[in-house]
Amino acid sequence: MPVGTAATVKGISTPQLEQTGARMVLANTFHLHLQPGEAVVAEAGGLHRFMGWDGPLLTDSGGFQVFSLDAINRIDDDGVVFRSPRDGSRIDLTPERSMAIQRALGADVAMAFDQCPPYPASEAAVAEACRRTHHWLERCVASHGGGGGSSHQALFGIVQGGCFPHLRAESARVVAAMDLPGIAVGGVSVGEPVEEMHRVVRQLGPLLPEGRPHYLMGVGSLREMAIAVANGFDLFDCVLPTRLGRHGTALVAGERWHLRNARFRHDHSPLDPSCRCLACRRHSRSYLHHLFRSEELLGRTLLSLHNLTTLLRFTTAMAEAIGQGCFAEDFAPWEPGSPAAHTW
Amino acid sequence: MPVGTAATVKGISTPQLEQTGARMVLANTFHLHLQPGEAVVAEAGGLHRFMGWDGPLLTDSGGFQVFSLDAINRIDDDGVVFRSPRDGSRIDLTPERSMAIQRALGADVAMAFDQCPPYPASEAAVAEACRRTHHWLERCVASHGGGGGSSHQALFGIVQGGCFPHLRAESARVVAAMDLPGIAVGGVSVGEPVEEMHRVVRQLGPLLPEGRPHYLMGVGSLREMAIAVANGFDLFDCVLPTRLGRHGTALVAGERWHLRNARFRHDHSPLDPSCRCLACRRHSRSYLHHLFRSEELLGRTLLSLHNLTTLLRFTTAMAEAIGQGCFAEDFAPWEPGSPAAHTW
Repeated sequence: MPVGTAATVKGISTPQLEQTGARMVLANTFHLHLQPGEAVVAEAGGLHRFMGWDGPLLTDSGGFQVFSLDAINRIDDDGVVFRSPRDGSRIDLTPERSMAIQRALGADVAMAFDQCPPYPASEAAVAEACRRTHHWLERCVASHGGGGGSSHQALFGIVQGGCFPHLRAESARVVAAMDLPGIAVGGVSVGEPVEEMHRVVRQLGPLLPEGRPHYLMGVGSLREMAIAVANGFDLFDCVLPTRLGRHGTALVAGERWHLRNARFRHDHSPLDPSCRCLACRRHSRSYLHHLFRSEELLGRTLLSLHNLTTLLRFTTAMAEAIGQGCFAEDFAPWEPGSPAAHTW
Repeated sequence: MPVGTAATVKGISTPQLEQTGARMVLANTFHLHLQPGEAVVAEAGGLHRFMGWDGPLLTDSGGFQVFSLDAINRIDDDGVVFRSPRDGSRIDLTPERSMAIQRALGADVAMAFDQCPPYPASEAAVAEACRRTHHWLERCVASHGGGGGSSHQALFGIVQGGCFPHLRAESARVVAAMDLPGIAVGGVSVGEPVEEMHRVVRQLGPLLPEGRPHYLMGVGSLREMAIAVANGFDLFDCVLPTRLGRHGTALVAGERWHLRNARFRHDHSPLDPSCRCLACRRHSRSYLHHLFRSEELLGRTLLSLHNLTTLLRFTTAMAEAIGQGCFAEDFAPWEPGSPAAHTW
C-alpha cells in the first residue's frame, strides 16, 4: 500500500497512482482528523470520493502518530490526551474516538487503536502496552459494531509485543481470538535492528490465523517484504518509496541511486531499462538529474512514481511466483547477492 | 505556449501536458544555459528528447532574463556581459552566442537576441534599444545561416519600440523587411498599463506581414489574447497559468479563485463543471482546498493543469470560431461583461 497520508500520495495524481500498479492505499487518520477533519471527508461521501480513488483504502488508527508526538499530556487506560500540533488545542483520542473518526472517513479497512511502544523499551513497558492494546481492542470491537465486520468497513486487530517472544506469542493469541477479518503486526520498523524484525516475522508467521490477510505495518523494503511473504504476510505499507523519491533517490537494481549526483549529468540512458514507469519510459538519468538540480517539482513526482512502481512490480512478482509454485525458489530466502536480489 | 522554463512545465508531466491541449511549448535559453548547459541537451539529442516532448518547441533568446538581472556589467553594441546568478562567473551573451546556444538546444523555433527596455523608459532609451535590436537581428540572421530558415530551426525576429508609435512602426518595418518565417512583438507585458498594450497590438496588427505567425510575447490573459487574435496574432506565452496554479489560484469563469480560502472547505462541487481537466473531472473544490491547506504538491499540479487547460480551451475556441467565421461575433471585441466573457 502506497501511503497517502493526507488523502494524497505525495506528488502523485490518482491516474498516475493507478499506473504504478497500486491496488490498495493507506491514509492517516491522525493527519486527516487535523486537516480537513473527518466531517469534511464524510460530507464528501467518504475518503474514496474525497481523494478520487476507487480502489481499496485502509486508515490507520492515529495511535502511531500520537505516540510519536512530544505534546502528549496523558496516557492511561482510557486513551491519550495531547495538544494538536496544528493549533495547540486539546484532543482526546480513545479507542471509541478512533473508531468514530475512521468510520466517518469511511475506508474499507479500519485499524484498531493500539499503543506502539518505542524501541528500545523495557519488558515491563512493552507488557503494559500489550495489556492496554488488548483492552483497547475489545473496546474497538464493541464500538465498531461487534465482530469487527460492519457491512461497510472491516476492522483489523494489531499484535504488539516488541522484541519479546513471549509477549508477541501472547499478543498473537489474544488478537487472533477476536476473530477479526484481518490481523496486523505492529511495533516493527520502529528502529530495531533488522534481524529483530526478521525474528518477529518468523515467530509470528505460524501463529497468525490462516484464511485472512496478515499485515506487517510500516515495512516496505524488498528483502523484508520477501521474508515476510515467505512467512505468510500479505499486506505492507511504507512511506520510503515516495519519501526517497522526493529527496532525489531512486530504487534501481536493489540499490539507492542519488540522482543529484554529478555522475548522472551526462548519462542519457533510461533510469531503469527494465521498468515501464513514466520516468523510465520517457526520460533519462540526465534529465532526472537536471530536474533535481533545478529543484523542479516534476523530479519528485517522477522518482516517487518510479520507486512505487518498483516496489509494486516486486510484490506482483512475488504473488505470481506463489501462483506458479516457484516462490520458494525465486524469493525465499531472498538475500542480497542471490540471483533474485540481483534482478531487483 | 505553456512555459517550460527549465525544460519542464513546472509540476506537470509530459502526458499531463498533452492532455491540457497544449500544442507548442516555450523553454528558456537563459535558464537552460546555466543548468544543465546546452551541451548536455545537445548530447541528449536536443530539447525534444531531453524533456520527452514530441510537439513543437520554441526557445527565447535569453535576452529578456539577462536584462532583468541586477548583475549586468556592461551592455554595448557587441552584446551583454553579466555575472552568472548561479556561480558568479562572467558570461558574455551576444547575438551569435544566443544563436549558438539555441542551435544546440535544437528547438523548432529560435528567437532573435533583442534588447527589451523596461517600462517606463525614455523615448531616447527605447530608440537606442530599437537601433541595437535591429543591428543584432542582422547578426542573428547571419549567424543563423541567412534567411532565418535553417533546415531544422526557424528564426523569428522581434519588434520593439515600447509605447512610442513611431518607434513601433519603424521597428515593424525593419523586422518585416528581414523576411523571416515568423515575427514577434516584444516589450509588452513589462509593466505598462493594459491600455498601452492594446494600443500597440492594434497599431501593429495591420503592419505585420501576412502569411506567417505573429507572436505576442509574454501575454496570456484571456481578454488580451482575444484582442490580439482580433488583430492577427497567433502565438502567445505566459507563465501566469502555472504560477497562479502553484500558488493556489484557479482561473474559473473569468475570475481568480483562491482555493485556500475557507469558503471552499465544504464545497464538494467540481472546480469548474465545464472543464474536463483532471482537477475538475476527479476532484472537488473542497479537496483542492485541503491539498493547499496541507501544502501538498498535488494541489499545485492540479491547479496548474486546470489553468493551462482553461487557457488552451480558450485559444482553441477562438481558432474554431475563426474557422466557422464567427470570431468577430463571439470574441471581438471581447470585453469583461460581454456574453463571451461570461462563459469564460
